[in-house]
Amino acid sequence: MSEQGEETAGARANPPYLLYLGSATDELSIKTARGLAHWRPAQCLGQHRRPDCTVSLGLPDLAIAQGRASGAHSMVIGAANAGGVMDAQTIADAIAALDAGLHVVSGLHQRLRDQPEIVAAARRNGLTLFDARAPQPGIAVGTGKPRLGRRLLTVGTDCSVGKMYTALALEQSLRRRGRPADFRATGQTGILIAGSGIPIDAVVADFVSGAAEAISPARDDDGWDLIEGQGSLFHPSFAGVSLGLLHGSQPDALVLCHEPPRRHMRGLPDYPMPDLVACMEANLAAARLTNPTVKPVGIALNTSRMQAHEAAATCERIGAWFGLPCQDPVSMGVESITDHLLACFPA
Amino acid sequence: MSEQGEETAGARANPPYLLYLGSATDELSIKTARGLAHWRPAQCLGQHRRPDCTVSLGLPDLAIAQGRASGAHSMVIGAANAGGVMDAQTIADAIAALDAGLHVVSGLHQRLRDQPEIVAAARRNGLTLFDARAPQPGIAVGTGKPRLGRRLLTVGTDCSVGKMYTALALEQSLRRRGRPADFRATGQTGILIAGSGIPIDAVVADFVSGAAEAISPARDDDGWDLIEGQGSLFHPSFAGVSLGLLHGSQPDALVLCHEPPRRHMRGLPDYPMPDLVACMEANLAAARLTNPTVKPVGIALNTSRMQAHEAAATCERIGAWFGLPCQDPVSMGVESITDHLLACFPA
Repeated sequence: MSEQGEETAGARANPPYLLYLGSATDELSIKTARGLAHWRPAQCLGQHRRPDCTVSLGLPDLAIAQGRASGAHSMVIGAANAGGVMDAQTIADAIAALDAGLHVVSGLHQRLRDQPEIVAAARRNGLTLFDARAPQPGIAVGTGKPRLGRRLLTVGTDCSVGKMYTALALEQSLRRRGRPADFRATGQTGILIAGSGIPIDAVVADFVSGAAEAISPARDDDGWDLIEGQGSLFHPSFAGVSLGLLHGSQPDALVLCHEPPRRHMRGLPDYPMPDLVACMEANLAAARLTNPTVKPVGIALNTSRMQAHEAAATCERIGAWFGLPCQDPVSMGVESITDHLLACFPA
Repeated sequence: MSEQGEETAGARANPPYLLYLGSATDELSIKTARGLAHWRPAQCLGQHRRPDCTVSLGLPDLAIAQGRASGAHSMVIGAANAGGVMDAQTIADAIAALDAGLHVVSGLHQRLRDQPEIVAAARRNGLTLFDARAPQPGIAVGTGKPRLGRRLLTVGTDCSVGKMYTALALEQSLRRRGRPADFRATGQTGILIAGSGIPIDAVVADFVSGAAEAISPARDDDGWDLIEGQGSLFHPSFAGVSLGLLHGSQPDALVLCHEPPRRHMRGLPDYPMPDLVACMEANLAAARLTNPTVKPVGIALNTSRMQAHEAAATCERIGAWFGLPCQDPVSMGVESITDHLLACFPA
């Protein structure tokens, strides 16, 4: 674990936000900012774009001083260059934000705290820096000890199949029904949305299950932690991260996430997608080590590349196989999964 | 990955060694030095002990200058204080070794490179520092791509059941039979013994399988890599490390290591030991993701806390269950496992 200075001691971002898009020219580079604007619209007061920026979140365009005047507490650097690098203009704008009285939050790979001029600006203004991709210090080794509270983990056949989106949709659904529910973030976009969390893939390997325990501590309010899964037990590059997260989460409930049209594991043309039943079984078997009563409660499909009738038929077919609700959280919501979750785990 | 200075760029220790025991007073604290003296006796020219040291490796006692004069190239700090901390005397002696012309190697948790006076002494003498517990920079994400060469991984029911010892014994056995064989180290003691390796549990989680790929690169000499396993798929704190190592190793052969009298997982009284058959099956199932033809070739038992007749009967019983050779590498050697390995994988 790297040392953190006082500027980052809070380990929690301060909304509301001004979203900095810089000179972004493609949609993919503002994915993190878009996720934040989608899931936390009330926290996003505006966007700040350089003159050469060609993309937009549809939020009011605000200069830094206007953002501060509108009530923003932090500026979020939510646009990544190739390589996640912070260019000179971004550094200058981060310093300008600090000098205008805004905390600065970043989802970039390159850390705010490693830029001496940004650290100096935070210090002289008494403001904080929050690097969503940097684990906080002091994460302990996992204990495997049972803890109070109910936890659902989204697991997947592969990377990028909708695990974060599904967990956020379930949080929203449970809250709408008046149930205490908290999304627990394990990746940088999720951390910006939640305002806290641990970027689990950046944790030193020995501490992955400990990090999962830390982000979903014991709770006794009959509420749910909805934990954002990462990777897949079947991804040869990242399965260790997925397993440590699974053990540390001690999930009571699993939702399996999948994208039906995907032909092979992300980035690995020679690795076919795992069989859905085998993937569910492998996750349940591994999860039983730390929670022997774990139950599957639903399947979440990403059908964005399918026709509507094909998506509906696929959900019906896969749901029937498993005897579980199966929905696309984006196009169909997650209400039947929530229904089944609450039926399996009565208050 | 932390940055490394030029003093550590080699990422390989330089034998022969003078073993520094400092002021050690208990056997456990010199475990690393003892492992090195046991497995690489020809590389260990002597030991250096402070006047208050009460333990011994049975090697000649040499002052630092004598060690250098005897032909040692490096001094190995092989004794750990409580907490793996480097005390002022150890720091002074490390500097004295560097000023006497010896490289310095450490297996301590606290790093040589984080001690400015030691770094300065290395620099002024043009010598290297090697921290066995610090992963080298530049480890890539695992690719899962098949590679040439044959690899055996020792897996275990738990931590500290003999995985390192078994891999080293198999290296020795294969070499005695004239087969190219290389122990590949994944923990600090193993790294000191091998002179190189990656402390896999200190790697950032996303890079664990990539680290395993890096330590056991493609080979085409019909030789074997004997990869030191870590942890257990059934240890709730560390299973993610074990799984990443298993996937990155792409093992052709597995040896399952176990200590029969153990009642519960190390450090976790509430976690019973896994069933041996279930443990073997889980390792094989996970290993098939990156090497579908993986085979189990033997069982290695640590019977040091058993009577000889009980140990022999247990090996016979467990071997018969699996239809595999089953031996205690310390008291019985590994020849029947080597026989079976070579029968399964003819040259």
